Amino acid sequence: MTERQENGVKKAQVLIEAIPYIRKFRGTTVVIKYGGSAMVDNALKKAVITDIAMLKFIGLKPVIVHGGGKEISALLAKMGKESVFIDGLRYTDKETADVAEMVLSGTIGKNLVKDLEAVGIHACSINGKDGSTFISKKKEDKKGRDLGFVGEIEKVDITLIKTLMDADFIPVISPIGTDSDGNTYNINADYAASSVAGALNAQKLVFMTDVDGIMKDKDDPESLIKKLSESEAISLIESGVISGGMIPKTECCLDALKKGVKSVHVLDGRIPHSILLEIFTEEGIGTMLL
Amino acid sequence: MTERQENGVKKAQVLIEAIPYIRKFRGTTVVIKYGGSAMVDNALKKAVITDIAMLKFIGLKPVIVHGGGKEISALLAKMGKESVFIDGLRYTDKETADVAEMVLSGTIGKNLVKDLEAVGIHACSINGKDGSTFISKKKEDKKGRDLGFVGEIEKVDITLIKTLMDADFIPVISPIGTDSDGNTYNINADYAASSVAGALNAQKLVFMTDVDGIMKDKDDPESLIKKLSESEAISLIESGVISGGMIPKTECCLDALKKGVKSVHVLDGRIPHSILLEIFTEEGIGTMLL
Amino acid sequence: MTERQENGVKKAQVLIEAIPYIRKFRGTTVVIKYGGSAMVDNALKKAVITDIAMLKFIGLKPVIVHGGGKEISALLAKMGKESVFIDGLRYTDKETADVAEMVLSGTIGKNLVKDLEAVGIHACSINGKDGSTFISKKKEDKKGRDLGFVGEIEKVDITLIKTLMDADFIPVISPIGTDSDGNTYNINADYAASSVAGALNAQKLVFMTDVDGIMKDKDDPESLIKKLSESEAISLIESGVISGGMIPKTECCLDALKKGVKSVHVLDGRIPHSILLEIFTEEGIGTMLL
Amino acid sequence: MTERQENGVKKAQVLIEAIPYIRKFRGTTVVIKYGGSAMVDNALKKAVITDIAMLKFIGLKPVIVHGGGKEISALLAKMGKESVFIDGLRYTDKETADVAEMVLSGTIGKNLVKDLEAVGIHACSINGKDGSTFISKKKEDKKGRDLGFVGEIEKVDITLIKTLMDADFIPVISPIGTDSDGNTYNINADYAASSVAGALNAQKLVFMTDVDGIMKDKDDPESLIKKLSESEAISLIESGVISGGMIPKTECCLDALKKGVKSVHVLDGRIPHSILLEIFTEEGIGTMLL
Amino acid sequence: MTERQENGVKKAQVLIEAIPYIRKFRGTTVVIKYGGSAMVDNALKKAVITDIAMLKFIGLKPVIVHGGGKEISALLAKMGKESVFIDGLRYTDKETADVAEMVLSGTIGKNLVKDLEAVGIHACSINGKDGSTFISKKKEDKKGRDLGFVGEIEKVDITLIKTLMDADFIPVISPIGTDSDGNTYNINADYAASSVAGALNAQKLVFMTDVDGIMKDKDDPESLIKKLSESEAISLIESGVISGGMIPKTECCLDALKKGVKSVHVLDGRIPHSILLEIFTEEGIGTMLL
Amino acid sequence: MTERQENGVKKAQVLIEAIPYIRKFRGTTVVIKYGGSAMVDNALKKAVITDIAMLKFIGLKPVIVHGGGKEISALLAKMGKESVFIDGLRYTDKETADVAEMVLSGTIGKNLVKDLEAVGIHACSINGKDGSTFISKKKEDKKGRDLGFVGEIEKVDITLIKTLMDADFIPVISPIGTDSDGNTYNINADYAASSVAGALNAQKLVFMTDVDGIMKDKDDPESLIKKLSESEAISLIESGVISGGMIPKTECCLDALKKGVKSVHVLDGRIPHSILLEIFTEEGIGTMLL
Repeated sequence: MTERQENGVKKAQVLIEAIPYIRKFRGTTVVIKYGGSAMVDNALKKAVITDIAMLKFIGLKPVIVHGGGKEISALLAKMGKESVFIDGLRYTDKETADVAEMVLSGTIGKNLVKDLEAVGIHACSINGKDGSTFISKKKEDKKGRDLGFVGEIEKVDITLIKTLMDADFIPVISPIGTDSDGNTYNINADYAASSVAGALNAQKLVFMTDVDGIMKDKDDPESLIKKLSESEAISLIESGVISGGMIPKTECCLDALKKGVKSVHVLDGRIPHSILLEIFTEEGIGTMLL
Repeated sequence: MTERQENGVKKAQVLIEAIPYIRKFRGTTVVIKYGGSAMVDNALKKAVITDIAMLKFIGLKPVIVHGGGKEISALLAKMGKESVFIDGLRYTDKETADVAEMVLSGTIGKNLVKDLEAVGIHACSINGKDGSTFISKKKEDKKGRDLGFVGEIEKVDITLIKTLMDADFIPVISPIGTDSDGNTYNINADYAASSVAGALNAQKLVFMTDVDGIMKDKDDPESLIKKLSESEAISLIESGVISGGMIPKTECCLDALKKGVKSVHVLDGRIPHSILLEIFTEEGIGTMLL
Repeated sequence: MTERQENGVKKAQVLIEAIPYIRKFRGTTVVIKYGGSAMVDNALKKAVITDIAMLKFIGLKPVIVHGGGKEISALLAKMGKESVFIDGLRYTDKETADVAEMVLSGTIGKNLVKDLEAVGIHACSINGKDGSTFISKKKEDKKGRDLGFVGEIEKVDITLIKTLMDADFIPVISPIGTDSDGNTYNINADYAASSVAGALNAQKLVFMTDVDGIMKDKDDPESLIKKLSESEAISLIESGVISGGMIPKTECCLDALKKGVKSVHVLDGRIPHSILLEIFTEEGIGTMLL
Repeated sequence: MTERQENGVKKAQVLIEAIPYIRKFRGTTVVIKYGGSAMVDNALKKAVITDIAMLKFIGLKPVIVHGGGKEISALLAKMGKESVFIDGLRYTDKETADVAEMVLSGTIGKNLVKDLEAVGIHACSINGKDGSTFISKKKEDKKGRDLGFVGEIEKVDITLIKTLMDADFIPVISPIGTDSDGNTYNINADYAASSVAGALNAQKLVFMTDVDGIMKDKDDPESLIKKLSESEAISLIESGVISGGMIPKTECCLDALKKGVKSVHVLDGRIPHSILLEIFTEEGIGTMLL
Repeated sequence: MTERQENGVKKAQVLIEAIPYIRKFRGTTVVIKYGGSAMVDNALKKAVITDIAMLKFIGLKPVIVHGGGKEISALLAKMGKESVFIDGLRYTDKETADVAEMVLSGTIGKNLVKDLEAVGIHACSINGKDGSTFISKKKEDKKGRDLGFVGEIEKVDITLIKTLMDADFIPVISPIGTDSDGNTYNINADYAASSVAGALNAQKLVFMTDVDGIMKDKDDPESLIKKLSESEAISLIESGVISGGMIPKTECCLDALKKGVKSVHVLDGRIPHSILLEIFTEEGIGTMLL
Repeated sequence: MTERQENGVKKAQVLIEAIPYIRKFRGTTVVIKYGGSAMVDNALKKAVITDIAMLKFIGLKPVIVHGGGKEISALLAKMGKESVFIDGLRYTDKETADVAEMVLSGTIGKNLVKDLEAVGIHACSINGKDGSTFISKKKEDKKGRDLGFVGEIEKVDITLIKTLMDADFIPVISPIGTDSDGNTYNINADYAASSVAGALNAQKLVFMTDVDGIMKDKDDPESLIKKLSESEAISLIESGVISGGMIPKTECCLDALKKGVKSVHVLDGRIPHSILLEIFTEEGIGTMLL
């Protein structure tokens, strides 16, 4: 065998390794919560778009739910609007909710669509008002604080999402909802993704984050937990191993499992092509809850 | 007959009068360019939403293209951004185009959807980036001026619009497009409506304006022209009867006819339910070009 | 606003008032028992045809069941055939049943079809023999009298009716049936309509009669009962308020409700466009049982 | 082989003989003009119904067009209505046309349906008014005589016929039509059958008559012509071999061929099961024009 | 009536006699176990092909399962391979199983297909490996003998068979199966036919044999049993009336009934057209179990 | 990045590299002529099966045409049948043709199916008799020699092949055909593959051979020609660069291009996964003609 041939055979091995995963996952729905560095860094952004294209071409059905906190803050700043915080949580007045909708649905969603269309994938960006996709209500704060127009999803009507998917468009969803009084609510993107994945009975929910995954010791990359059952996750929270900002993320993962999602993945969005690696290689990357 | 019965019979007469129009137009596509006072005044807004609901319930297929110049200016002002004008035409720098997209797609479109959903009609707001609906390019100014990111539509890909219509969603379209370099363009809403109507081979294109219609003497409401053929419109422009701001509007109507739209209607959006009146009564309202 | 515009706005109001009814009823089946003056008077006949056309155009699914007692008597007379009556009920010998079928299926049904086709509505007249639509049997008289070939319906096979409806034809049904011995039965048109409406799981069954509706005092038009529940109707019969010829009509209404029809309407067919008034205006007309 | 077995083998031979015909004709449309003795004699009637059932079961698509002259005359007589004849042709006044419709559509058609339904075949009897199937006009008499409401077919709209066939109902068609003024016309059943067969692009048109077929010498059964081309038929008429009442019948056959029917069969309806014999055996029966 | 006509009428009677059977059986599945003399004698072979064509043309859905013991022995002989017998049963070593597959799938099945295609019927020959149609395993011998690669069917996957039937191909199935270790098994054709018929929920399973049917006295053709219930068959075995080689055949028939086949027919394949005779004539032929 | 992550990223790169090919080729038909070492060596065989599975899972539509000369010779030898050669070409008498069919359709095809089914891919092996797929005739020898039952394909009827593909079965085709006289012909597998690919309007035809590809100097692996246009191939034959056994192979490639195949690939079947390498990597392998 020539060197070129040997090189080729190695490549073939990688493709071969992917076969059982392709076989297993084609035709299934994968909801991707897109956010963090992977949405800011241009090279990473391009890699994510490529990964999603790969999923689509191979026959999976990707659905994107995106966040955009930084961009909302930036526009509020530009408008000279000062953010009010209660116990460290941003208070969302009506104007802030409107700005959030503008930025999420009018800028971030549309640009994601543009990038997907540019690689030959059809996409359509919607928010929870379109097709009454998110029936929402004001979120009840556990501690009784009034955080303004922060909402939670009561029900996902998947008609529009399915219409788009069946016509081969990737739905790109901004976490904005409304209620029967016509109020606009800003919704936590992680929970929106979890609700969408549950309603679609998704095979996978992928969270793109800025950490390696769920770790036993967040300062030791070697302590990454590769697989975690529902009960294990609960004990790790109770025992304090999962702590700080990872608690709400893990709770959101558990919420998705409860809603019927088969597996939830916490990935490091800072690694290029982390989605492909997690889904199509033996080693995987990040933490899988199931 | 009792008085109640007589009253009833009169009502029946109005419904009966509508039958031939319902028979003629059900199943056909009607593109509505929504803008002006009808988009600002709350009572008028409600009447328009009701009219569109009526069209949908009776079996017509409405499609909305909306503008939003005033709202864009308002946000630009809030952001402390001064508008630059060239010969009275706003210069659209990149930031302005982004703001236009935010306001049109992130606020106006979504709120229209919310209002339609509230009366039981499904709708989805998109812009020209979604599904690559508008393949656009920088608009060439007749006088060679550079007006920035003002675009025109080269081609309408109706796949997404038809997908939504076939699934019983009213498409609500913001006049924003992109080109292969990923630039965002602000597009004239009248021409966007004309292009959409042409691409859909629409039966009717309805312009909601703040004038009575096309008039022989714009100060004399009695001089309203009720029906106008293509050639008549051209001679009225040439002879100067149609003048000022009505010239571009009329040219846009002619453009739509050339693209295959069966009839174009210039309505006075300040009259409540002008759409219903024009489509379903003998008297009609406004000017019809065909 | 000019006077023409004001006039237009009033018309629009009537159309607007109809919207919730259109929204509620489109797609639903309405069975109309057609008979009485509305079938004899030419102006009324035309109004009924128009009303049915309106229902069809707006998206409802009308089905017609018609009577024709007077026409049958006329032909029997012409043939020199004397009618035999038992306790005031016509005795239907074989020849009379054949004449009934000829007149109903060969004249009245076909002419109704002709009138509907003339206004652009497709229709097809059938009787219970076609497609074995009515599986019938000799009607058992409560008092044990032999009334000859008077039948009742054991089962409605809706295959043919649905075939016609799905292909956009209005079924026009004559109340004639047959049994496994091949006998021809004349069936009471009210009960035929009730059976058809029940088998089709109709939203509405409309009886066109020559009275105002069900009244507390049949000589006082002001005593018309606008709405009546099943139990109220029964007590009104028991208490003697409903009396005479209105008893069998009311019993037939109750029969339809029991078979699953959502609401039954007793209308005054002598008022033009009574069907439209009852279905699409707030005031309604006649009595609704539900 | 036992005698029973031998007998069985002979039966099998008959079935085997039918195979190439079944193979050739299944899926094709056969229009049968039903009339004459076969419609009067009870045993023959039963045989015809059986034959049509056989066609349907084997996968052919039969359509029936029937006459009924004798029955019309009988009812007219009963009504004390005297028939007026012009040059031996019955003058059809309005009442006569109405009686013809009553008898054809209200009695004969319905009873044919009843007989077909009784052997497990679904059928529906219609006339030319249903679904505007026959667009008709007053027939122009070659000699300029006014024969009243005798019509001819301008156009067959096959929508209703196809709807019934596609839903597995045999259409049973009475030769009655209407025009845009709402007149009722009595149409020659042979020509109605020819028009229907042409419009359906039928494989076969079968005329059930009271003669052996087309014969060289009408008094010599041995002179029956088994096969006849279009041109041969024309010369036989010109040379006087085909004469008398057989001329219009033959002309009607030629009319059908011109309208695109593949073959036309003139059968002796007095022989039981003549349809099966003609279509499924080598010998055939009657005359085939093609 | 002429003699030709009389002859025709007799033929019609045979066709007429077939109608109730055609009506009853069209659309149903008939599995034919083809073997014995009918597969060797050329005239009989042709008659079988004709019969199957008739079934197909009339609308039944035939499926063929064939044997081929003699042809396998012939090839083994040619290859100089001696057959080993254990208690009179052939021992099937790996090579013998491979030869069986070659002969059944590579010669007999393909030639049957060729003969069916020649009469205008589409067919496709498969064995149990295609589409994993037969999930098989080594057959357990009741007496614990090792007969080598003789298999039995655990499960029939009907996907491929249905795919072919739905596309109008007659499946011709060789009784060869495989297991998850990739072994090739020779399967008893009678039981393969029974399993296929059961899995297809067939109306009929027809065994073509070299006997008259099931007889009370196998030497007296008059003792043929025409109809046999499940319980009767069991008592006839127990009482010794059914004996010798007819016992396994009868047990296989009972197996099919248990698997849901409506009726099983043991026919004398030596009589030409025995399939047609059994299915479409009153007398039938052979023995029917149900 | 940890080493594991770096390793992952490299793997991702290989998958990413495959995307444009997946995008380009999914949904297209690839005909694979399977033969040579890749059909004999067990490891290579397994790699081919894996490659074909990959094609199927990714959304391509593979079709296999296989040869089997060595296996035919082996069975002929076992049967003690001596091969007769004319000018070095095997003479195919009737028995040899039957043996070829047995081996190809009864052994090789079925075992390929078994191997595909074992990796979860549905397959069905057919030959040209099934569904009259190959309408064949005796091959005319250029030099007028009689080579016996060697055939060539006149027409490919793709109905059966498409039926299987549409139902998600990979067709595995043996190069055996028949003519209207019922003769069995052995057909050159390369030409059978070319005819099938042409009839299916395939995107690709892949020949698995025992050479590196088409080379300028067959002893110098470095002289492999990676891409070859139709005209270049012709000049290389004319100039003698392509010589010996590579001439008929190249002619067969040209034949396929002429029949409408988009590209033809001559691959070295001795390199594992050569199909994947050729289709999904930049380097490719072997020679592509287009």
